[in-house]
Amino acid sequence: MRRNILLKTQYDGTDFCGWQSQKNGRAVQDVLQRAIFDLTGENVNLTGCSRTDAGVHALSHVSNFFTESTVPGDKFTYALNTYLPTDLSVIHSEEVPESFNARFCTKGKRYKYRFQTGEAPQAIWSRYAYFVHGYPDAELMARAAAYFEGEHDFSSFVAAGGETKTTVRNIYSCKVNALDDGIIEMDIYGNGFLYNMVRIIAGTVLYVGLGKLRAENIPHIILSCDRVQAGKTLSAKGLMLCEVYY
Amino acid sequence: MRRNILLKTQYDGTDFCGWQSQKNGRAVQDVLQRAIFDLTGENVNLTGCSRTDAGVHALSHVSNFFTESTVPGDKFTYALNTYLPTDLSVIHSEEVPESFNARFCTKGKRYKYRFQTGEAPQAIWSRYAYFVHGYPDAELMARAAAYFEGEHDFSSFVAAGGETKTTVRNIYSCKVNALDDGIIEMDIYGNGFLYNMVRIIAGTVLYVGLGKLRAENIPHIILSCDRVQAGKTLSAKGLMLCEVYY
Repeated sequence: MRRNILLKTQYDGTDFCGWQSQKNGRAVQDVLQRAIFDLTGENVNLTGCSRTDAGVHALSHVSNFFTESTVPGDKFTYALNTYLPTDLSVIHSEEVPESFNARFCTKGKRYKYRFQTGEAPQAIWSRYAYFVHGYPDAELMARAAAYFEGEHDFSSFVAAGGETKTTVRNIYSCKVNALDDGIIEMDIYGNGFLYNMVRIIAGTVLYVGLGKLRAENIPHIILSCDRVQAGKTLSAKGLMLCEVYY
Repeated sequence: MRRNILLKTQYDGTDFCGWQSQKNGRAVQDVLQRAIFDLTGENVNLTGCSRTDAGVHALSHVSNFFTESTVPGDKFTYALNTYLPTDLSVIHSEEVPESFNARFCTKGKRYKYRFQTGEAPQAIWSRYAYFVHGYPDAELMARAAAYFEGEHDFSSFVAAGGETKTTVRNIYSCKVNALDDGIIEMDIYGNGFLYNMVRIIAGTVLYVGLGKLRAENIPHIILSCDRVQAGKTLSAKGLMLCEVYY
């Protein structure tokens, strides 16, 4: 009987060329599909909640696939992990209704962007945070972040190459917190994100923290619908997809 | 003028064969000494606070070296980082009195050993925590840990191959805490540690958490001075040298 299986996966994006299958390069989707083949003998096509870019991490990425195998839905977690490398793991699996589609059923996503700040880079954070030499003001960054909340046309915060009908998105929350050891974390939650949007927002928020932009200018940058007005696209390594909502 | 320079370094031990210089393999000491050579033209011999084993991480490892160069003590941090790979960084540098020796002046060290627990390994923790399939009882582990505090002969908790005059050490504190996402952390602080001692204590504490040993038996295991009585030596990846005290 054909069943629909949902997988939540976690990965360290450093050594992946992104989620989506590619001819050249090590894609998360390919490594996962290979593990499913090793387990079930089936060549499946995973549907992912989003393509993450090369270097971007995921704490919980959601995908689904159809199978004729008899493996119980919740057993894919353990079974697939025996075939997966240490930088990719299945953290949850379950059987879901046939209508579930990991891409089209998403209601929202939460990302974190992490900065490590100070006089010297911290090797332990080198894979998971973007190093900023100096001391950006986290309170100013929090003020900047708040301006992104709400429904806006995010044309100023999208990289060329995305495919989308509309550039309007609703950001439910965007918070910045200073953690221990010079780590600053931006947590952003919305109904959807354009190509490179979180990394450009992070770059803009950082400019405010460094005094290169004023927080009060952000509404104008949003209204301008002009990519040049916003900050630069920050490195993929600082970005993590944290949760997908259905 | 010959000056004595202290370096605090941080490293991800995954791709190192340990701290100490080796003929074959990538040692932290060799990579650091090469960076000092690139900066100053001098072939120095670093004295390290401890040799960490292959795979063990350091949040703050201390070493010192003598130089004739004119680079100000605090400027080595920035200057050396320009020559270092992302998995090794200098987080602090300063000039210290000639008598300072990073190895012989240590008064204490603090290590953390991290477990990730649950049904599935988490890829994001794969470099920095030892995966335990299941749910060890963190409260029992905390009770077990407390028995290690105080001055004891730790012969039951040392691997063959260490060089030391005495196996008596004073553990100032040994605590276990359950963090978010199934991470359990053991924090141990003492005047010194024998070869593999923290990893064997961690293995023993874990056995208690899994119900394979009773916490109340630990005093007997310590008194037995018999390595066979203790738990197994856990993987290096969960171990991090956190602070060295002088």
